[in-house]
Amino acid sequence: MAEDSRPDSTDRADAFQDFYPDDYAHCFGCGRLNEKGLKIKSYWDGDEAVCRFLPKDYYTGGMKTILYGGIIASLIDCHGAGMAAAAKARELGIQVAPGNMPRFVTAAIKVDYLAPTPVGVELELRSSVKEIKGRKIVVHVTVSSGVTLFAQGEEIYVQLRDEKP
Amino acid sequence: MAEDSRPDSTDRADAFQDFYPDDYAHCFGCGRLNEKGLKIKSYWDGDEAVCRFLPKDYYTGGMKTILYGGIIASLIDCHGAGMAAAAKARELGIQVAPGNMPRFVTAAIKVDYLAPTPVGVELELRSSVKEIKGRKIVVHVTVSSGVTLFAQGEEIYVQLRDEKP
Repeated sequence: MAEDSRPDSTDRADAFQDFYPDDYAHCFGCGRLNEKGLKIKSYWDGDEAVCRFLPKDYYTGGMKTILYGGIIASLIDCHGAGMAAAAKARELGIQVAPGNMPRFVTAAIKVDYLAPTPVGVELELRSSVKEIKGRKIVVHVTVSSGVTLFAQGEEIYVQLRDEKP
Repeated sequence: MAEDSRPDSTDRADAFQDFYPDDYAHCFGCGRLNEKGLKIKSYWDGDEAVCRFLPKDYYTGGMKTILYGGIIASLIDCHGAGMAAAAKARELGIQVAPGNMPRFVTAAIKVDYLAPTPVGVELELRSSVKEIKGRKIVVHVTVSSGVTLFAQGEEIYVQLRDEKP
């Protein structure tokens, strides 16, 4: 990947989540229309997707210095759902544009917390598709900073029925 | 359970989370010292623990009418962690008091989303201990309202090393 194509949530307009239809853009984690939400953004990076996110300092776990596991699960969920939608669009050959991104819901999520995640650190989430079969997509997500892997997740997403399989 | 002992987060002072030591009371999900947090509360109900919680209306999923899966995972995580701590205290015969509740961290969480969860509904979380072995406790949690089961979780918690096993 060329240095100038480095994914960066601050200056790009092609986040997966920005292409969700309006009625599906209210997610607290990633909806562009949820004013109180986290508004996470995910982008293609080859066959992977990447998201960079710096959680607010009040998302602490029990201890003040450690990030809350619930926010890690939330980031994994939304980033993975974006990956599922983008992967389905790519499979179908859809040229994504505002409103035409396929819509998926989470059927299951599993998160392994591998190391305490410090607060105040920008996290990098990377996802890959493990399985894509009709309406069901299994996504693997890692949460890291530099060389430290803090958590990993595996999620099952199911495409909504009003979409083409 | 007698009607007058019905768990209720609004009028009881014996929530598991209120007994965490101060340095472990900053959790966004359940810390009494996190001013921006959810402050969920869990209580014994026989051999189960129960938590009732009405999420704020901005914790929406993609659609405005559906609760965000990330908040469901967060509730399951914190309620289950409280159950792990209380179950360990009960096993050790500890009379819990402010500051002496055992401390656990989440090693893994799995959530199955079984039905769309509406916003504006008070949820009931119920937990039971599946396995307790030294520092490791496996907890099962259900999320429901009335007779409708919306989600279930299974979590692995590990007691911090500065505690007695």
